[in-house]
Amino acid sequence: MDPRVREHAETLVDWSARIEAGDDVVVSVGEGAHDLGVAVAEKLGERGANYHATYSSPEMGRAYLRAHDGEFEESPEFELALYEKADSVLSLRGTRNTSATADVPDEKQEAMRKAQKAVGEARMNTDWVSTVHPTRALAQQAGMSYEAYCDFVYDAILRDWEELAEEMAQLKEILDEGSEVHLRKESSGTDLTMSIEGRTAVNSAASVAYDSHNLPSGEVFTAPTATEGEVTFDIPMTIRGAPLRDARLVFENGEVVDWEAKQGEDALTAIIETDEGSRRLGELGIGMNRGIDQVTDQILFDEKMGGTVHLALGRAYDANLPEGESGNDSAVHTDLITDMREEGTELLVDGETVQRDGIFRWEDGFEG
Amino acid sequence: MDPRVREHAETLVDWSARIEAGDDVVVSVGEGAHDLGVAVAEKLGERGANYHATYSSPEMGRAYLRAHDGEFEESPEFELALYEKADSVLSLRGTRNTSATADVPDEKQEAMRKAQKAVGEARMNTDWVSTVHPTRALAQQAGMSYEAYCDFVYDAILRDWEELAEEMAQLKEILDEGSEVHLRKESSGTDLTMSIEGRTAVNSAASVAYDSHNLPSGEVFTAPTATEGEVTFDIPMTIRGAPLRDARLVFENGEVVDWEAKQGEDALTAIIETDEGSRRLGELGIGMNRGIDQVTDQILFDEKMGGTVHLALGRAYDANLPEGESGNDSAVHTDLITDMREEGTELLVDGETVQRDGIFRWEDGFEG
Repeated sequence: MDPRVREHAETLVDWSARIEAGDDVVVSVGEGAHDLGVAVAEKLGERGANYHATYSSPEMGRAYLRAHDGEFEESPEFELALYEKADSVLSLRGTRNTSATADVPDEKQEAMRKAQKAVGEARMNTDWVSTVHPTRALAQQAGMSYEAYCDFVYDAILRDWEELAEEMAQLKEILDEGSEVHLRKESSGTDLTMSIEGRTAVNSAASVAYDSHNLPSGEVFTAPTATEGEVTFDIPMTIRGAPLRDARLVFENGEVVDWEAKQGEDALTAIIETDEGSRRLGELGIGMNRGIDQVTDQILFDEKMGGTVHLALGRAYDANLPEGESGNDSAVHTDLITDMREEGTELLVDGETVQRDGIFRWEDGFEG
Repeated sequence: MDPRVREHAETLVDWSARIEAGDDVVVSVGEGAHDLGVAVAEKLGERGANYHATYSSPEMGRAYLRAHDGEFEESPEFELALYEKADSVLSLRGTRNTSATADVPDEKQEAMRKAQKAVGEARMNTDWVSTVHPTRALAQQAGMSYEAYCDFVYDAILRDWEELAEEMAQLKEILDEGSEVHLRKESSGTDLTMSIEGRTAVNSAASVAYDSHNLPSGEVFTAPTATEGEVTFDIPMTIRGAPLRDARLVFENGEVVDWEAKQGEDALTAIIETDEGSRRLGELGIGMNRGIDQVTDQILFDEKMGGTVHLALGRAYDANLPEGESGNDSAVHTDLITDMREEGTELLVDGETVQRDGIFRWEDGFEG
């Protein structure tokens, strides 16, 4: 076994999920995540935790959904009981075919998700962490060889998280104290302001201790309002199965009033027109994971890339809001990413430069 | 997918487990049983049942057990809740390495089994069925090519179970009404009598409707007492990792008083001397599955072979006993098999020949 698989398991169990002796841990093993499952089981044994392994198989899901009449029972009691009594859920994703459920009608998948709402909530109420084991299918999706993709994934995951968490804490403090964020990028004509007044930034340090549930992570995010101006997203991505290139949004009074894209404009339109909330931003995220240095069209990696900023159309996260207040609501949450690593870009908070040309002001190479 | 995998799934879901709409079904997927898992998921979708897939991985188990200090928590609540609320558990075995846990100390495996007692009981209280998906590892253990092993497994599983259940009902009736079973085999000097007075035979027709929990099955078994005489077991097998050949037992007053084996006598001795109950028989089983026509050293197949009889040293099953009565008790239940398919063998009940030379009296070719 690649020694990095064991390091990954250790990071997941100790840093991310903070597993302790006696914890009841559900380990969800993807079709291609067996090796990580073995390494995680070893680590859970060492820690004296209890584990229950579930098999997360898109191929089983596909077969079930296609055969079912679609009248799903709401969150069957047996599965609900498991998650309600679990302390942690570790999801080891790792598909063998990213198109495994391509021939399942969307309505059926959506009906299943709705029926499983209570199970989903019970999972979210545990100390859950989702991570990814590199597979050939994911390498293919990223347009990379398997070996290179493994290097990419482990560079992103095997960070000094303690150090990164401290660095991210600086940015969180700036955002928590700030009122307005300003993004500028000369080459694409991006010039956008957002209010972050009264919002709390999340230091997403890939650990439940930071209310951060993905490994890798490495971003600081908040929930902006009152967005004004224009922004272009130049990191290529796939949305709803279609390539999206250079999406451009124009905001007035917090709402998208105009938009275009060099490719994928129809999909972009569909997202923007989903509902009331899909015209507003739910998230401003600032990538800080320097282990991620290339685009792989896998959002969980791309949006964490050091030197990028992402904005999400749609739903805001409660963690960013004052207790009891609800933020932008929508059925969608679609992240779009812009690359700040070129001359003529700036991220300012209350008029002060926090990042220039993709380099934070506390980093080597920053030109003040 | 081999169309027999789908037939297998259908037999399992409909004939064996009698799954109905709304049933909560745990599907335990072995490391090498993915394809059967997909076929079972499809069938469960068709029936409108709910499923929760668990991953039964000996390699995860090995890693966990070796790393753990051995002080296991008793049946953690989260897993117990799942099984207590489940209607059925379908175990799809199919290992990729029959020696996967060879380097886990026996004491630890035993300690884990003990700690999991309540979970085990909760599983047994469901309509559980255990079956096997053919893998290369199992083919290897059987000394067969993969293709030939697949044929072997599906010949055993894809029977006309309704017809076989009816045939087995005849034998059950004979045993239920009978008082004494007599086995004779001239070539090996086998001459053994057992009392079955007051015992109820089980028609093990591979269906929960028959209180039979293995697919394949195909035997009628009861719990004998007062065994007298000698018997040789000529079907080769592996017990406790060692080959056992031509084990011979001598009974007096229901107890083994003398024994020998051409090979594996030490392992045989260890079993016989386990405890008080391991010197007595817990089961007489009569194989009736004509789809199984060769020895593969996999007890669940071998003991069901049409034309064989097996006797188990140790624990008896409650199903054979009058309500509230307990039968022979022991920590072991070791099946030993003798081949009745040769001239000069007979199985008699109350002095009447039921089977001669491996052929039942209601079968073609029986010479009365």
